[in-house]
Amino acid sequence: MVVPRPSGLPIVQFRSRAGTIDLGWGHPHPAALPVEAWTDASHSALRRYGGAALTYGHTTGPGPLIEWLCERLGEVDGAAPEPGQVFVTAGASHALDLVAAVLCRPGDVVLVDSPTYHLALRIIADHRVDTVAAPADEEGIDPDATAELLARITRKGRRVAMLYLVPTFNNPTGRSLPAGRRAALLAVAARAGVPVVEDDTYRELAYPAPAPASLFSGAEPGTAVRIGSFAKSVAPGVRLGWITAAPPVVAAVAARGCVDSGGGVNHANALTLAEFAALGWYRRHVEAIRSRYRRQRDALVAAVRDELPQARFAVPDGGWFLWLRLPHPYAGTELLPHAEAAGVCYVPGRQFFVTDTGHRYLRLSYSMCDPETLTEGVRRLAGAYRAAGLPVGSAPGPAGDPTPG
Amino acid sequence: MVVPRPSGLPIVQFRSRAGTIDLGWGHPHPAALPVEAWTDASHSALRRYGGAALTYGHTTGPGPLIEWLCERLGEVDGAAPEPGQVFVTAGASHALDLVAAVLCRPGDVVLVDSPTYHLALRIIADHRVDTVAAPADEEGIDPDATAELLARITRKGRRVAMLYLVPTFNNPTGRSLPAGRRAALLAVAARAGVPVVEDDTYRELAYPAPAPASLFSGAEPGTAVRIGSFAKSVAPGVRLGWITAAPPVVAAVAARGCVDSGGGVNHANALTLAEFAALGWYRRHVEAIRSRYRRQRDALVAAVRDELPQARFAVPDGGWFLWLRLPHPYAGTELLPHAEAAGVCYVPGRQFFVTDTGHRYLRLSYSMCDPETLTEGVRRLAGAYRAAGLPVGSAPGPAGDPTPG
Repeated sequence: MVVPRPSGLPIVQFRSRAGTIDLGWGHPHPAALPVEAWTDASHSALRRYGGAALTYGHTTGPGPLIEWLCERLGEVDGAAPEPGQVFVTAGASHALDLVAAVLCRPGDVVLVDSPTYHLALRIIADHRVDTVAAPADEEGIDPDATAELLARITRKGRRVAMLYLVPTFNNPTGRSLPAGRRAALLAVAARAGVPVVEDDTYRELAYPAPAPASLFSGAEPGTAVRIGSFAKSVAPGVRLGWITAAPPVVAAVAARGCVDSGGGVNHANALTLAEFAALGWYRRHVEAIRSRYRRQRDALVAAVRDELPQARFAVPDGGWFLWLRLPHPYAGTELLPHAEAAGVCYVPGRQFFVTDTGHRYLRLSYSMCDPETLTEGVRRLAGAYRAAGLPVGSAPGPAGDPTPG
Repeated sequence: MVVPRPSGLPIVQFRSRAGTIDLGWGHPHPAALPVEAWTDASHSALRRYGGAALTYGHTTGPGPLIEWLCERLGEVDGAAPEPGQVFVTAGASHALDLVAAVLCRPGDVVLVDSPTYHLALRIIADHRVDTVAAPADEEGIDPDATAELLARITRKGRRVAMLYLVPTFNNPTGRSLPAGRRAALLAVAARAGVPVVEDDTYRELAYPAPAPASLFSGAEPGTAVRIGSFAKSVAPGVRLGWITAAPPVVAAVAARGCVDSGGGVNHANALTLAEFAALGWYRRHVEAIRSRYRRQRDALVAAVRDELPQARFAVPDGGWFLWLRLPHPYAGTELLPHAEAAGVCYVPGRQFFVTDTGHRYLRLSYSMCDPETLTEGVRRLAGAYRAAGLPVGSAPGPAGDPTPG
């Protein structure tokens, strides 16, 4: 028995606040983390691979994980990638950072969906590019308007390095880009010679499954790069994700000095994940968390309908988030201090836009809390709404319309 | 019992060649990888921390690892850093990549030791800077000449972003910068406002211990950044290293979009390493590998003295490498095809220089092979040397003089 060492320094990223129900962070439910299964897989992988699990790993990722991932994507996506199209990363954020490093040059323009994952905007900005919102409406990116924007930017002599979006169970809206728009967007980007970078983080969190086929699986070779994650389907602390891309992009990522020097970017854990899959844990775990997060989504949806009838939203078919549109044009921003005073928090919509807009919206995460806690959180949010003196009529416009105003 | 899956794809980075003794790669000896101990630590960490080991980790690293690392550095370095000076990374290569990302702007100049770790040159170049060799002689970087070079570069209107070196058991020379030069170099860099980036990867591999005090431990606050690694002291496949730096540098690294989005960069493994240390495995393991690598060094040194008396070298007090200077000015480059034909390989000296020099040298690694294999490798190398018709007289100049010619 090991005696715990007293530690005054934090262990985890999440900072819980006593008395506050957190609907802000997109972190997993504590009970959804596969502690026993990961222990089993780790033990089994070290027994199976021995020292090969602890030395420098193959740069694009260990073969057993790549082979299994290709099989799995053949089941849950429109097509299985080839092993030579895969690069194993230390999470989706790391995947985006690597892809931006090889596709972007300082001073380039990067187009992004609007609204989109707020921290992806930070990762992209680290590459010294100008981020520009692609035109979007309630269904997501508008391909025709994006074609016009691309032409305008190109006429100004600027290079567009890539177009980033979360087309499946978008963070923050929860919605998926319709099939017709997927094909049209790929065609627009291919004509302009701009790679589409598809953040496919939420694919496995589909309620009900299956998720729509990825852009990558339907794209002409070399026109789309997809980034994926095991943070949602297994656990974020193991820092594993992947890239699927044309072999030259995979080779460019593998040729980064850091990768060449360090070998596979998270080798030991990548083999543990291969074992987690080989032992059947992955399939069972994804089924269990789909059921859990579906129940949590349903509880949050029901509570918002009951307590906040003035909010408009689309029920997401997957992911972790509900995107609320409120009647007052600054409701999402103005409500936050009242919500925090009432013991609940969320992420204001403004954070998911490149420009100063989206103040009407807020993102609620249903990932971390049990159904009853989600219900109580929405009750507190409704109380805060009343305390803030915000209008009680329903929001104008279509559900979840991301345009400002 | 798990049936192994057939895999046609590589698992590890090292590519063994049948019949070839590899003195090239700086990879650990297979028997020096702590498979049983890591299994034990992983199991114990998951039992102790539960879901906290698998969710998003604290961005600068989990408290228990940071606290222990500070204690350990207090034992094996000149001083213990403060916890707020530490950032846990996914290896030393990743640490250098992060440090370069926050210190460099495209178009800056980066000074590097000469010769220096060849893959560090690649990592630095990825940040779109111009790499320039700092003046060096057989003892390492020359502080006075470096001051003059800094002044010349600055007069040209260029910004020098950082100065990179491996002052302790340098890769490739195995030598450590003398104490007087350490202090002088810190003073020169501080006066010029150029941060020293100290690659301290080999600190724990000291034969005999202790290693010299780090530049970081003797530097004025804010003037030096040190990067460290668990790749050599524990295992490279777990991808763990660290940065020690002034708190503003730590904060800048933690503010990278990728870190903010993904949390601690290798959280689950960082907690396993904390447990590996808490259970006493770290201390025992480092003692065992010091003993192993010291024996391997001694075998290589003896074999070179016996078989290649024309080679000049300094016996390293630590690390994994022997740096040979040969009489013929192109011996290190010209010998390689003959060596490979004879069933032995190494890294030609040229690779460790920014400019087209160093052809006289070669780096032998004693990390991967048993003593008898090292001896046989040098026998083959001596045979290749004769087959190449290279001169048998001893090399001119001081042992290991890195100047060209």
